[in-house]
Formats: sequence, C-alpha cells, structure tokens
Amino acid sequence: MSIAVIYGSTRINGNTEQLAEHVIQGLEVEKIFLRDFLIKPIDDRRHAEGGFTDVDDDYSQLVERMMKHDTFIFATPIYWYSMSGTMKNFIDRWSHTMRDEKFPDFKKQLGSKKAYVVAVGGDNPYLKGLPLIQQFNYIFEFMSISFGGYVLGQARRPGDITEDKAAIAAAVNLNKKINR
Amino acid sequence: MSIAVIYGSTRINGNTEQLAEHVIQGLEVEKIFLRDFLIKPIDDRRHAEGGFTDVDDDYSQLVERMMKHDTFIFATPIYWYSMSGTMKNFIDRWSHTMRDEKFPDFKKQLGSKKAYVVAVGGDNPYLKGLPLIQQFNYIFEFMSISFGGYVLGQARRPGDITEDKAAIAAAVNLNKKINR
Amino acid sequence: MSIAVIYGSTRINGNTEQLAEHVIQGLEVEKIFLRDFLIKPIDDRRHAEGGFTDVDDDYSQLVERMMKHDTFIFATPIYWYSMSGTMKNFIDRWSHTMRDEKFPDFKKQLGSKKAYVVAVGGDNPYLKGLPLIQQFNYIFEFMSISFGGYVLGQARRPGDITEDKAAIAAAVNLNKKINR
Amino acid sequence: MSIAVIYGSTRINGNTEQLAEHVIQGLEVEKIFLRDFLIKPIDDRRHAEGGFTDVDDDYSQLVERMMKHDTFIFATPIYWYSMSGTMKNFIDRWSHTMRDEKFPDFKKQLGSKKAYVVAVGGDNPYLKGLPLIQQFNYIFEFMSISFGGYVLGQARRPGDITEDKAAIAAAVNLNKKINR
Repeated sequence: MSIAVIYGSTRINGNTEQLAEHVIQGLEVEKIFLRDFLIKPIDDRRHAEGGFTDVDDDYSQLVERMMKHDTFIFATPIYWYSMSGTMKNFIDRWSHTMRDEKFPDFKKQLGSKKAYVVAVGGDNPYLKGLPLIQQFNYIFEFMSISFGGYVLGQARRPGDITEDKAAIAAAVNLNKKINR
Repeated sequence: MSIAVIYGSTRINGNTEQLAEHVIQGLEVEKIFLRDFLIKPIDDRRHAEGGFTDVDDDYSQLVERMMKHDTFIFATPIYWYSMSGTMKNFIDRWSHTMRDEKFPDFKKQLGSKKAYVVAVGGDNPYLKGLPLIQQFNYIFEFMSISFGGYVLGQARRPGDITEDKAAIAAAVNLNKKINR
Repeated sequence: MSIAVIYGSTRINGNTEQLAEHVIQGLEVEKIFLRDFLIKPIDDRRHAEGGFTDVDDDYSQLVERMMKHDTFIFATPIYWYSMSGTMKNFIDRWSHTMRDEKFPDFKKQLGSKKAYVVAVGGDNPYLKGLPLIQQFNYIFEFMSISFGGYVLGQARRPGDITEDKAAIAAAVNLNKKINR
Repeated sequence: MSIAVIYGSTRINGNTEQLAEHVIQGLEVEKIFLRDFLIKPIDDRRHAEGGFTDVDDDYSQLVERMMKHDTFIFATPIYWYSMSGTMKNFIDRWSHTMRDEKFPDFKKQLGSKKAYVVAVGGDNPYLKGLPLIQQFNYIFEFMSISFGGYVLGQARRPGDITEDKAAIAAAVNLNKKINR
C-alpha cells in the first residue's frame, strides 16, 4: 500500500489536517497540499474542435504524484457544505486528464485505487456534510475507485477538532482499518 | 424585481446557458459569466492575525454587480456532481466578504434576496444532482436567502438539452413563477 | 407496456392520487390502493430457523397483482419526509418474497421492470422529499428495476395540488415520456 | 435525564439492539419494543369531517410511555434504506397525536426533548443510510426536537455488528456524550 493525502485546505495545520493526522498515524504517506500550487479551473473543451489543450499550471505534476500511489485520502475543509474550490478545481480537471494522451490509462488506473475522505466543517457537518460524502461516492463510483470510508469532524476555530471526540475516535478507527 | 444570472460554466452557450434562457425568457437580467474573470480560491484567514487582506483579482467587482440585484439565478453545469470549481471559488470567497468592511452589510443584505438554481449534468442529474441542490439550500439557509426553486436538466453533448423536454417544461414553469 | 399504480395514501382522491392522474392520463393501468388491504409489518426471519413462514394477510395477492405488470408507478404522500408506513410495510415484505418459494424468480423478474415515483408533500417536498427519492433509487438499484423518473408535488389541503403548476407540468411530461 | 429507547426491529437481540446496548451502557432507560404492539397505519383525517377518531390499538400507550422521558433513542434496522415500516407507522401517527385533545401539548412538549438515532443496515449503510438520517433530521426539526447525534452500523447476519469496530467506537462515544 502506498498512500497520497490530498489536502484541500488553505490554512496550515488546520483542523482538517489535524484530523487527517489521526487517520495516517504511523503510515508512510505523501502529502500533497493543493494550496501550494496553481490549479486553474477547467476549460471544458470536451466538445471543442481540437479538444483539450495543454494548460500552463501545476495540475499535471500533482496528478502524476497522486497516481504513483494506490490509496488516496482526500482531506478537505467543508466550505459552504462541499469541498473547497481548490480541491474542486483539481477534480474538475480530471475531465481533461481522462482525454489526455499523456495520461493514457487514467480512468483505468483509477479503477484499481482506493480512496478515503476526511472532511471538517463548522456548521453541523454530521448532517450538512452528508451531500458532500454522497458526491465523493458518485465521483469514486464513476471512476471505479473503491470508497474505503470517511470521517466527518466538527470544528470552527483553530484546534477545535481536538474537542470532537467522536471524530477523533472515528479517525483512529479508520487508521486501524487502513492498516489492516 | 431585478435579476442577476451567475453562470458557472466554461463553454459559451452551453447546455446550462440554454436551459437558463428558458428561465429568463422575457425578463431583463444582468448576466455575469464567471469564466470571463479571475477568481482566486479563498485563503481562509478568518482566524489569522490581521484577518483577511485584499485580493488582487476580479471577485469584488463581481459581488458588487451581483448585490445590485434582489434576485439571483445560479446557473451551473454539474461537474463531478456539484457546481463548477469556478462557481465554488466565487462562493467560497463569501466567507471573506462577510468579514470585509467594504461590504459592511453583506449577509444582512443577502437576507432580503431570492435565489434560483439551474443545473445541467450528463450523468443522471435527476438523482446525482440532488446533493448539489441540498448544498445550495444549506448555503441559502445560512445566508437567509429565500430559495425560490430549481431546475435540473440532463445533457451531455452541445445542444442536448433541447431533448430534455421535462427540463424545458420545468424551466418554462419557473419562468412563469418568477414573473408572477 | 402494462402498468400498475401502487398507492400509498390513506385519503380517497387525495393530492397524490390527483397528481398521479396526470401521469397516467390516457393510459390503461391497474390501480392498487394499499389502504384497502391488510399488510402486516415484516417479521424478519431471514436468519431464523425455518426461515419465513406464511403470513395471514393480503400482501401476497397484492404482489401477484403487481407482478403481472412490467411498469410500476409508486404514488405516495410524503408522510414525515418519506413514503407512508403502509407503503413501507409493503416494500419491507419484499425481503420475505425474495425468499418465498411461491415467488421463485421475484428478484429476477423485477430486473426487467421499470418504475416511476409520484410523491406529494406539504413541507417543501422539492427539498425535503429528495432523501425519499434517493431511497427509491437505492431500492430500484438493489432490485435492478429501471428508474424511469419521478414527480414531486407540493400540497397540504385537499385539492391544493392543482395550484402546483410545476408539478402538473412535470406530471404531464412524465405521461408523454411513459407513452413514448 | 430520562431516556426512552424506541426499537423498530423485529428480531430479538438483533444487530441494531446490540449496537444500541453500547449507546445506553450504564444508563437507565425504558425500552419500548414496537414489535410487541399493534400499531395501525395512520388514516389521514386531518381534513376529514370530524377529524381524527380514536384508533383501537396500542399506539397511544406507547406515546404516553415515550413522552414521560426527555431523551429518545430511535433504534431501527435499515430496511430498504429507511426505518422499518413498524417504526414508520409509529411516527406517521404523530400527525394524529398533534391534533388529539388527549395529548394537548404534544408538539410543544417535544420541543424540549432530545433525540438520537441508531441504525444498522447490511447494504453500505454509511452511504445508503444517509437519506434516512436526513429524514430523521427533518422530523426532529419539524418538532423542534434537538438532534443529538446518530450512529450507523453495518451488519447482515446475526451478531455481525460486533465486527463493525467503527460503529462500536461511535456508539461508545455517543454513550459518553449522552452521559455528559
């Protein structure tokens, strides 16, 4: 097993990152902090003449780093009840990658991957974060990625996540599950 | 009534835009095409020393244009089962605007607005687009924006939306409802 | 095409029934009013010694009537944000029927059926009825029933549904779709 | 604090009941097993002449027992992606109780109660059980019941729940939370 953690947050060592630490405790992982890179929004050229064209940003190297691993952990703060725009732009671009000859077997390769989700929000994430989980499920289903599980956490101010004992316990359990 | 249509799509005159045309038929609207502007992802500085700082992009002028109206129509293609990353970045930035002294009553003003959603997807949007609708509902609830209704449409290739008779009928009905 | 409409409501000619009329306009259907029959809750004996035993009520004859058709329309009022308890008991019992030698190919036969849903509620069904639609989708997926579409309607007092123009329009469109 | 556990399952000591045991460990509770009682489906007479009439079954005594407590735990197996028909009939009947002079302040009293949900299913409940949780949330919101939290568990055969370590951990945490 080889794990990439893809972080969608903008704060360093924020609540989402802290909760993810419990999930990856003792595991060797590659951390990809999307906030450190330029990821342009997709320009949907699926049906345009000539199709997609190369984009001058950091996206491709990030996908390359991600695809070296067989297990992904998507760790995102819940901004306005869904993943951060940064992470959304990253995933939107998959529509290009699926048609990019530089990634000839992108979708097929994803079909052998496994993914987990860690998401932390301030406004009742145990209920209002559920649509986000359903969307991740649809994304993974479309790509035939195996959805291994998720952890939701509640936190508003920096460090609050330590008070969400249920989230910590769930993260610790997910850690054990991943280790098995 | 004064209407702003906020478009999250990247293609010109795409299916989402066409479906929205039925919703705004005969109405005077201001169209805001997010794709024509630079909108950076939010840098969450809610808890940072000094708070948020000015961002050098087009976001503020777009919010200003939007806030001149009392009715919003959010028209987005369904990318990966949620709104486009472009639109998500636009909405993520509201967290800054809520704390921006240049928009002193942002949230309060939103509380008197009404919003509609038009969303078009290729992969069973009538089911897999429902989490997106729930998220818009949470966003509007948080801001006390009145949620006036939504239209989902199914389309994959350019122009396909004309074949989704149910979506067209729903859009025409929403048009009548807005006009009342 | 041969259609069974399964009604979960308890009122005669209530809003759900009226909305369903627009869906079945001009079509020959068999109407099954669950309220007129005794349907006991399931006694889950999947893992009990001896398995399920015959139940003395009207359930079996209702399933027999339903299974003579290739298309089902489930028409239910939205009670407390999901289908009526009457309809739920009817569907819960499918767990028995799947293991009942009197219905040897129940699940296999369902795999060639198509289903639609009509649901009417008083408390914002366009949003709060969405979990119900997702549940019907899961039910149909499990049974490999093709989910042909759904219509939601809003109504509280008898006859109110006539004022939900969007629901009527959607029902008329579904009628055309079924007819094609 | 005084707790009623309302069980919707039909099997004795099934997985839902076992998971609920972890939630109520060390707490004094009154257990209400709906399966032991006759609960007729609601006959919706909200708009009928004369309104609701007395129903000859066990429902009223169950509500009376429940209302003596200030905290409810709804423990239901996930049958076909939602609560059991037995529990659904019990909740459907609240529409009558809200208008029953024998329970003059039913809704008002509920507004001071707190509720938790324990739900166990066999088919990916961590995803396919989410609509059920959303529905409980809507029910509690409507009644102004405070929604204290929920635990989902996965189990198919008797006793399987012991293998869902995440569910057990979550139940143990909920127990601590209730105890605080």
